[in-house]
Amino acid sequence: MPSAQIIAIGSEMLTPEKVDTNSLFITRELNRLGITLSGKRIVGDTKEEIAEAIQQCFARADIVIVSGGLGPTEDDLTREGAAMALDKTLVYREEILEAIAERFRRTGRQIAERNRRQAFVLEGARVLPNPNGTAPGQVVTVEGGKLLFLLPGPPRELEPMVQEECVPIWATFFPGRFLRTHILRIARMSESAVDELAAPVYTQFTNPETTILASAGDISLQFRASTQSEAEAERLLAEVVDPIRKILGRRIYSEDGSSLETTVVRILTERKQTVALAESCTAGFVSARLAAAPGASVCLLGGFVVYTDEIKTELTGVDPQLIAAHTAVSAEVAEALAANTQQRTGSDYAISLTGFAGPMGGNEKDPVGTVYFGLATPNRVLTKRQIFVGDRGHVVRLASQWALDLLRTELVAPDQNDG
Amino acid sequence: MPSAQIIAIGSEMLTPEKVDTNSLFITRELNRLGITLSGKRIVGDTKEEIAEAIQQCFARADIVIVSGGLGPTEDDLTREGAAMALDKTLVYREEILEAIAERFRRTGRQIAERNRRQAFVLEGARVLPNPNGTAPGQVVTVEGGKLLFLLPGPPRELEPMVQEECVPIWATFFPGRFLRTHILRIARMSESAVDELAAPVYTQFTNPETTILASAGDISLQFRASTQSEAEAERLLAEVVDPIRKILGRRIYSEDGSSLETTVVRILTERKQTVALAESCTAGFVSARLAAAPGASVCLLGGFVVYTDEIKTELTGVDPQLIAAHTAVSAEVAEALAANTQQRTGSDYAISLTGFAGPMGGNEKDPVGTVYFGLATPNRVLTKRQIFVGDRGHVVRLASQWALDLLRTELVAPDQNDG
Repeated sequence: MPSAQIIAIGSEMLTPEKVDTNSLFITRELNRLGITLSGKRIVGDTKEEIAEAIQQCFARADIVIVSGGLGPTEDDLTREGAAMALDKTLVYREEILEAIAERFRRTGRQIAERNRRQAFVLEGARVLPNPNGTAPGQVVTVEGGKLLFLLPGPPRELEPMVQEECVPIWATFFPGRFLRTHILRIARMSESAVDELAAPVYTQFTNPETTILASAGDISLQFRASTQSEAEAERLLAEVVDPIRKILGRRIYSEDGSSLETTVVRILTERKQTVALAESCTAGFVSARLAAAPGASVCLLGGFVVYTDEIKTELTGVDPQLIAAHTAVSAEVAEALAANTQQRTGSDYAISLTGFAGPMGGNEKDPVGTVYFGLATPNRVLTKRQIFVGDRGHVVRLASQWALDLLRTELVAPDQNDG
Repeated sequence: MPSAQIIAIGSEMLTPEKVDTNSLFITRELNRLGITLSGKRIVGDTKEEIAEAIQQCFARADIVIVSGGLGPTEDDLTREGAAMALDKTLVYREEILEAIAERFRRTGRQIAERNRRQAFVLEGARVLPNPNGTAPGQVVTVEGGKLLFLLPGPPRELEPMVQEECVPIWATFFPGRFLRTHILRIARMSESAVDELAAPVYTQFTNPETTILASAGDISLQFRASTQSEAEAERLLAEVVDPIRKILGRRIYSEDGSSLETTVVRILTERKQTVALAESCTAGFVSARLAAAPGASVCLLGGFVVYTDEIKTELTGVDPQLIAAHTAVSAEVAEALAANTQQRTGSDYAISLTGFAGPMGGNEKDPVGTVYFGLATPNRVLTKRQIFVGDRGHVVRLASQWALDLLRTELVAPDQNDG
């Protein structure tokens, strides 16, 4: 079985504060192609140590992937370390410097003298273009047909480069394996609740392999079939996915890896309907998530961030007596926020959130973590109450997940929002 | 300078799902004693690879710490790997097995035959008791007075063992060392622009050691001094930090690691002033960042998410003729958004953002990535224009950083916002 090793370069990842996460992304892409990871390490910004690590990793792996240390500064030494490890020279490529200069020009800035460092590549290397940053990647073939990849450190530069440049190379390097993945995503259920329903099915199969990933209010069931043909992979996946799909039904919000916000935007766009929001405890987080979905400008109108009681009245016209009678964290205020937002923006749907995200606030009836949701639709205004556990950031993420899935459910199966 | 390396053992940490976090805890404890980490790695459950890793790490470090692989099962091979690396035999210690048996008895369980494996230690090793699990730790002195530690993998076993057993040994091994860190954070400057100003100073010093961390629009300069006394560490840090502070001046937004939003909230709270926002392209992201800072409810009123042209008029009263004349992405509309938001919310400051975050939109004059900022203050309304490069999410993060730092600068050094 072909194997790879990953080296992350950067003294900051040898501090107690910072962990390397690029390797997780790279590992996922390698595994898809049937390539396993046999080791990984962090090396500081020292040329000799980088060189030594590359040599040691090649003793155990067919592919060595180095991330980071390709920047323009004095302590970016990956190029030099790799040259030392392979006993190759570094070659200056004018066209790289021109591409960097062009990138600077577009943003009205001047290229710095030090960016010249980034135009050097290993002799014989193929340059991997970086549309998201200045440092290009490199790949070079070493003794025995093994491959060395040098990739930029920032995830937003590395991840597209892995997908667009590295994956095609890895795939031809080890042809004839198909790793096919199918993902079911579910919101508003706990990992154990999903597992209780799905495990009786998936434990019957070892191929596909099943993994459950859980993040705030978001469960992904991943099924990975490894076979010799695509058709066989599809058949194996259907054996486990079909029965689980039947059990989970409309609680599945996507089957193609799409995020919840992308799903909501897609449904609204198909129906030519719009949404607006009034956010208290989440303070714009739900709106920003929706806006991040492709095509959101067609269905997202905007709305209000109403962080204080007075602003709830001033911007959305909630009756101050209603707030005085029920407090701002109440079903009554959530309802008024949603109804008024729908009316003031002219949207088809309006979502409101008001709650105690913590660490301050809360009372006996509604402890920290309590969030009230309002949802105004063309036919009705409903409210929900939910208590979340976790720190402030976690409560905000959970509440945003809950709000978006409340709207999604109303769009595809409104009866499931009753009761 | 004494240095250590950490090896985490376990094939599960070579999957896309699991990251080693023990090393962060161990690093924090090492650094407190002035011991730096010069490298770390993950190795699978293979005796030869464990042995090789230990040997390679000792070539670069005085202390090697291995975590995990001390369990009772067949794939727990740390003991065997260490014996192979050091060319030592493993010695059976009856008293360890008795301690394990006693532990099982207390929980009403029977010790298993396989637990016998855990009673083997390297010849000459000192046993480190594990009150929280079955596997004891070990420490053994190797050639040149270097030390090898074998520690259990579960954090609730490893962490107390590090604190109670390892720290006292590390302290006597390298007595009287202090590691002190100072962090300068800067927004709205590129990594290379910061480096160009700071490098002429920090390259004169090897102690403190300097690291630059860059994320979207946010640069951290980290200085780490390692000395014999705290006073000496402070003095060494001042040698490099003082001149760099003089050069960067008010562009430094924090010196204690605080985030930009926390800094803004702190300054506003000290002055008993408030802020409101009108966000178009960022759609609530800046508000949500401010709300995440501790104590934000004192100074953040709320504001508007104005994603469409019509909503800009309906919610914030921007004259539709102004939008028709200049388009929504213009200095004029940014100015009106900020001024109207300040007026409608009664805030002291109001920030507006309107731009093309991409991938759609943009024109010849204002390409994708162009964002206009408005800032209404008690004295004036100013506007700024900036072009950002990157995908949608990156433009949003950069714009949020820019908006917050524009406000911060206005609060502490308003003249720097002129021109």
